[in-house]
Amino acid sequence: MPKNKQFHLDNRPVGEAVASNFKLVLSDTPPLQDGQVLVRHHYLSLDPYMRGRMNDAKSYAQPQTLGQTMGGGTVGEVIESRNAKFVVGDKVVGMGGWQEYSVVDADQVGALRKVDTTHVPLSAYLGAVGMPGVTAWYGLLKIIAPKVGETMMVSAATGAVGSAFAALSKARGCRTVGIAGGPEKCAYALDELGFDACIDYKLHQNAASLAKALKEACPAGIDGYFENVGGMVLDAVLSRMNAFGRIAVCGMIAGYDGAPLPLSYPALILMNRLKIEGFIVSEHMEIWPEALKELGTLVASRQLRSRESIAHGIEAAPEAFLGLLKGRNFGKQLVKLF
Amino acid sequence: MPKNKQFHLDNRPVGEAVASNFKLVLSDTPPLQDGQVLVRHHYLSLDPYMRGRMNDAKSYAQPQTLGQTMGGGTVGEVIESRNAKFVVGDKVVGMGGWQEYSVVDADQVGALRKVDTTHVPLSAYLGAVGMPGVTAWYGLLKIIAPKVGETMMVSAATGAVGSAFAALSKARGCRTVGIAGGPEKCAYALDELGFDACIDYKLHQNAASLAKALKEACPAGIDGYFENVGGMVLDAVLSRMNAFGRIAVCGMIAGYDGAPLPLSYPALILMNRLKIEGFIVSEHMEIWPEALKELGTLVASRQLRSRESIAHGIEAAPEAFLGLLKGRNFGKQLVKLF
Repeated sequence: MPKNKQFHLDNRPVGEAVASNFKLVLSDTPPLQDGQVLVRHHYLSLDPYMRGRMNDAKSYAQPQTLGQTMGGGTVGEVIESRNAKFVVGDKVVGMGGWQEYSVVDADQVGALRKVDTTHVPLSAYLGAVGMPGVTAWYGLLKIIAPKVGETMMVSAATGAVGSAFAALSKARGCRTVGIAGGPEKCAYALDELGFDACIDYKLHQNAASLAKALKEACPAGIDGYFENVGGMVLDAVLSRMNAFGRIAVCGMIAGYDGAPLPLSYPALILMNRLKIEGFIVSEHMEIWPEALKELGTLVASRQLRSRESIAHGIEAAPEAFLGLLKGRNFGKQLVKLF
Repeated sequence: MPKNKQFHLDNRPVGEAVASNFKLVLSDTPPLQDGQVLVRHHYLSLDPYMRGRMNDAKSYAQPQTLGQTMGGGTVGEVIESRNAKFVVGDKVVGMGGWQEYSVVDADQVGALRKVDTTHVPLSAYLGAVGMPGVTAWYGLLKIIAPKVGETMMVSAATGAVGSAFAALSKARGCRTVGIAGGPEKCAYALDELGFDACIDYKLHQNAASLAKALKEACPAGIDGYFENVGGMVLDAVLSRMNAFGRIAVCGMIAGYDGAPLPLSYPALILMNRLKIEGFIVSEHMEIWPEALKELGTLVASRQLRSRESIAHGIEAAPEAFLGLLKGRNFGKQLVKLF
């Protein structure tokens, strides 16, 4: 059996997450039992939700247990199988966590899914054709429910969710505007991701200044907003929402470290008869097949071309993750393991 | 023609609304044209939304025009008619405004509605069987969508909306908890309105203290909340909402004067996958017949017994209105004119 490098959560962040919260552990992969398969991970997905799980707070996700391997999505290859449904060489997506190998009870519902890499690269199953893509799909289709000609906005626009959101929104005939950090990301949003406009929030010191830029980019106001960040950005967008606007709340990354960020003017919810709804895509498994089908088609036809930020080797995972929380990634953040 | 006393909006509030924002004007009622009726108002309704209209700000309602009669719901009696559908003596509900008489183009859709006072007192058509009752109905049924056994909460619990909410919520088998100001209102909520519990927010200096009281009153958490006030109360309730909770936002009375009140911890929307939706009942006229039917039955059968605070004479309207904004009323605030 191969030796397995894995990262445990060693201690919980006090304020900002730091590299020393994680501990690299070397272990043996246990022998397989009936029904199990051994997967070698090609890529590990790093996602903002992991920061929430590092806290021991009441939240939607179970807190990550201390002294155990950090959870996380993985794609890889079956290298040993004692399960009739999987053979060596199968490409699979699962929740293998921050480690090089995982032993999976492959009969458990949702534990491991075979994927086809003929038209879609394996890593895309962690991004555009995986959880982030389905997240964008659910928020746009099931909460925002866009109409042709409406204006849609997404924050963290060049990330895995934002780029899928853009492709899905454009496919529905909506003006699609992004918010991202820095001129390079904004140029990429326009040139590669199909956004009609992209606003660099780093040029703005406060919500009023950002709101002014939003007004210019969205002369007809904002009908739908996909929220990934919270804080100043949410305040600014809220002030530009049209009557009967819909906001899908998927992330509040700005508030993960330390003090919660307030919403300055909640009375706008009433004034503009807004609907604001939080969701977690893993609680809506019934829509995954339909969403994955559309996303797979968009990727195969190159209408959805997400960029990836790839760190190399499991040892690089903590720094890549901390960079993601600070917006240093560019597109979907992955760690390539093999 | 009778002389008519009316209140105009003379100037807009700077911060808190004051009596001198209004000006009493004596005028003649004009002679009727074809299709019109002359209504003598028995009661004028005073409602929190009027405060919003006094500002010249972008909001859902048109700002009240300066130098014109304050808008408002009225019930009264037709005393002269040049409309085939109305005869002298008809009891009617309409938007007659802050005045003793109004001339109504009675063919206009929604301008004037005949009501039956056999089982329902005339004034109830401004409260339980009127706009406030339908407001409670819409928020509970169309936004919160309660399930048997869930816990429902409403702020401003002893007001016209709150008391209708309690009757409607209890009729659906929900634990129903109110928030009100002072021991007298809380006792009334329990003894007369059928609430299972009522919390006196005036006993609490901050959201954390109020949240603790909510926890005791709602041991199973809160599934639905009808928001009338905003501010500290909203912060406290939000912290006690269950996963998949629904909040209908009908009022933010705490924020009408002066500075907007922030929402302290919007990340809870995501953590608990909440839905928050603002609404204005006048934009959903299609549900009024169904709502009024249930509300009328509840009033006629005495399952819904709202209290009224009655000021006497049009001259008393401004002070009664300012008292309403400070929560000095007890139940539906009316002005009796004739």
